[in-house]
Amino acid sequence: MATAVYPGSFDPVTNGHLDVIERAAELFEQVAVAVAADSGKTPLFTTDERVQLLRDACAHLPNVRVDSFDGLLVDFAAQQGASVVVKGLRAVSDFEYELQQALMNRTLSQGVETVFFMTSPENLFLSSSMVKEIAKLGGDVGQFVPAQVRARLEQKFHHGR
Amino acid sequence: MATAVYPGSFDPVTNGHLDVIERAAELFEQVAVAVAADSGKTPLFTTDERVQLLRDACAHLPNVRVDSFDGLLVDFAAQQGASVVVKGLRAVSDFEYELQQALMNRTLSQGVETVFFMTSPENLFLSSSMVKEIAKLGGDVGQFVPAQVRARLEQKFHHGR
Amino acid sequence: MATAVYPGSFDPVTNGHLDVIERAAELFEQVAVAVAADSGKTPLFTTDERVQLLRDACAHLPNVRVDSFDGLLVDFAAQQGASVVVKGLRAVSDFEYELQQALMNRTLSQGVETVFFMTSPENLFLSSSMVKEIAKLGGDVGQFVPAQVRARLEQKFHHGR
Amino acid sequence: MATAVYPGSFDPVTNGHLDVIERAAELFEQVAVAVAADSGKTPLFTTDERVQLLRDACAHLPNVRVDSFDGLLVDFAAQQGASVVVKGLRAVSDFEYELQQALMNRTLSQGVETVFFMTSPENLFLSSSMVKEIAKLGGDVGQFVPAQVRARLEQKFHHGR
Amino acid sequence: MATAVYPGSFDPVTNGHLDVIERAAELFEQVAVAVAADSGKTPLFTTDERVQLLRDACAHLPNVRVDSFDGLLVDFAAQQGASVVVKGLRAVSDFEYELQQALMNRTLSQGVETVFFMTSPENLFLSSSMVKEIAKLGGDVGQFVPAQVRARLEQKFHHGR
Amino acid sequence: MATAVYPGSFDPVTNGHLDVIERAAELFEQVAVAVAADSGKTPLFTTDERVQLLRDACAHLPNVRVDSFDGLLVDFAAQQGASVVVKGLRAVSDFEYELQQALMNRTLSQGVETVFFMTSPENLFLSSSMVKEIAKLGGDVGQFVPAQVRARLEQKFHHGR
Repeated sequence: MATAVYPGSFDPVTNGHLDVIERAAELFEQVAVAVAADSGKTPLFTTDERVQLLRDACAHLPNVRVDSFDGLLVDFAAQQGASVVVKGLRAVSDFEYELQQALMNRTLSQGVETVFFMTSPENLFLSSSMVKEIAKLGGDVGQFVPAQVRARLEQKFHHGR
Repeated sequence: MATAVYPGSFDPVTNGHLDVIERAAELFEQVAVAVAADSGKTPLFTTDERVQLLRDACAHLPNVRVDSFDGLLVDFAAQQGASVVVKGLRAVSDFEYELQQALMNRTLSQGVETVFFMTSPENLFLSSSMVKEIAKLGGDVGQFVPAQVRARLEQKFHHGR
Repeated sequence: MATAVYPGSFDPVTNGHLDVIERAAELFEQVAVAVAADSGKTPLFTTDERVQLLRDACAHLPNVRVDSFDGLLVDFAAQQGASVVVKGLRAVSDFEYELQQALMNRTLSQGVETVFFMTSPENLFLSSSMVKEIAKLGGDVGQFVPAQVRARLEQKFHHGR
Repeated sequence: MATAVYPGSFDPVTNGHLDVIERAAELFEQVAVAVAADSGKTPLFTTDERVQLLRDACAHLPNVRVDSFDGLLVDFAAQQGASVVVKGLRAVSDFEYELQQALMNRTLSQGVETVFFMTSPENLFLSSSMVKEIAKLGGDVGQFVPAQVRARLEQKFHHGR
Repeated sequence: MATAVYPGSFDPVTNGHLDVIERAAELFEQVAVAVAADSGKTPLFTTDERVQLLRDACAHLPNVRVDSFDGLLVDFAAQQGASVVVKGLRAVSDFEYELQQALMNRTLSQGVETVFFMTSPENLFLSSSMVKEIAKLGGDVGQFVPAQVRARLEQKFHHGR
Repeated sequence: MATAVYPGSFDPVTNGHLDVIERAAELFEQVAVAVAADSGKTPLFTTDERVQLLRDACAHLPNVRVDSFDGLLVDFAAQQGASVVVKGLRAVSDFEYELQQALMNRTLSQGVETVFFMTSPENLFLSSSMVKEIAKLGGDVGQFVPAQVRARLEQKFHHGR
């Protein structure tokens, strides 16, 4: 079975991302989590921080590896020997964006297939940006992200308190 | 009957917001309009300006008060003794974002319920950002916002003409 | 605080409906659950059965009453002295249908306001028709409906086994 | 790699279904196409006809088998030793229905995962019901279905011409 | 300028349909309203009744004609010398269905272009089926349909009162 | 037949835009492509560059002209003697935004009608921002834009290589 690539900004990783990773790791032989170094927006965490937080969160999954990439996703997938891209779907707006991305990636590289997992109900409202917003406003994000991510968010927003 | 909180950026208040406020004021004993001091984007109007424009526009509604807040909405609602958050829905994209917000707020605070009003047909296309765009391009926004908001928008965009 | 009407086919009532009823019962003084006698489709349960299953399921809620109605919802609401209609929203397709219904009801009766609750995440996939389909195919619907509804569904589909 | 089940009514199979089957056959070791014997509506083709048309259309795919099933999909998947259900997504309305189905199937059987393929652009408008409607009205469906399906549709609708 | 075809079931015509017809009649030289004789569902009004109600409602529009058709829309358009199909859009669900229809019609006949009008806000909730439901339940549909349609609906549902 | 205005940012023009322009040029006597000088975001190409790239791409269409505008679209349309605005629709999110724009333009100017074309299936995923992202990441955009646009994108992103 081919390797699957799971791309994203992961700024930072949430429990919703981990749910997709764990499900992909059961379905595919290898999962290569791919942290987009240049996601278009200025991230809260550096690329290295985002990779490290993911590696910590995925340490219990032997067939998952985490790396960053820049350039086109289809090129990264080819380098990894991956023929599958995995994405999670939460909402209609995700659906349309992901449909466009999947169609474009098939146009750029015939050999790449995209498959989608539906997000678990308890994670439907979870996104990295909501987590950052709550943390910034002083809310507790402990039920939305791994413990280390929560600690790092507190450092970022409330350092010196 | 509990107090309802109606949160938003209100940059600036439109007739669509006022329609929701008036309908909420009929349904609930008290309505606390809550102006988000930190809405993530740089607003056109300062927090104080946005609060004042809303207070003027709601002067005829005795059970409506207007304040700004920073921090989490659920914390502000708790301070106000409010168990209900009121939101307006215009479109599918509103729906998905508001579903996520409502689910997250219930997770952050079990005591907070969110209820939604459907926007009146004549306000379906109205948004603060569209109003600002039209005013900036020199269009007349008199049918979309209260008179004082229109005057302030003209000052902002065409001062010195 | 005014009475709220919660209309539906309830063929049969699910845990998703009960979640909305319980939340409405906390927000409003009285909740009148309104079973549509003529819902356009041939129901699995008679109107009387649907009313009775709801009454059993709502027995612990002192401010909830259950009745059937035919004719226009706005007329039933007027008879009940209700100025509010309550609906649950699960999905975009719900949203559009309910937006149309709410706009039409406001056109038919200026005094009726519709407010919406977002369905809890664990009930997002729940619908009466899915429950009936699963029961018909021999699946266990025990986690989706009250115990009495489950028993009645087994009688309907597997009577004589 | 586990067997994948691809369920549907296939009344009749279209080129859009075949596109999903071919892509699934590349990704999974075995694909079990599962024709729902009881799809809720009266089908145009009998279960046996629908199975046979699929078998003919998939004859070139050695790791694809075609069977009918009644009962719950999760039970059929268990019988097949399949841990994956494959579905195609064309549109927002598909997305919402399939999200509900996938969530329900995970509730009914923790071991079943659903993954989705996006439909190819040229098949976005294709559905069995549209094909039947066109054939019924005398249009040529040759570019939408395999040759044998086209021949059978002409027999069904224009027999005796 | 080419003739435009405006197809539909029109069971019965509503003010929403008339709004589209009037706007199309300003834009195109000729508008051919096309009543689908076989709309898949059993209509309330016969094809002849639907054509007649439309002709009465469009009597003031000299460049509008009304006919019924069976068979494929693209064939009817060709017979009329029409290169344009006109449709109204009310909602996301309309959008997806109409997108599929437009793509299919372009596939069936390269010469046919479909253009869409957005429904006026006051008609966003209007549909023939809602009008029939209200009339059946005894509500007044006078603000949703022409006077003659209202009279005919009363005859259909309350004959003998 | 009136002139149609086709407005946009065109930063840069894609094959999807050209498809709409060509179809509009068949339907309307004159098409005035209108490049928004102030599109709210900082464009990659200057207004003059965007106009020039469009003029080159439309050189084979005698009834198409290209100009830039600032101010309100309805004012530009009036200056051009145009009573029709043409837009392309790709997705549900387009649909909602365009519905809002069309309703607002009708409110600002009763004489302006907006008509929509559905995007061709092969262009459903195409957008100027996706093209820019791919070009920036070093991908080949030759199948998505005219040759001159591709050349200019390479200059912008890889100048000096």
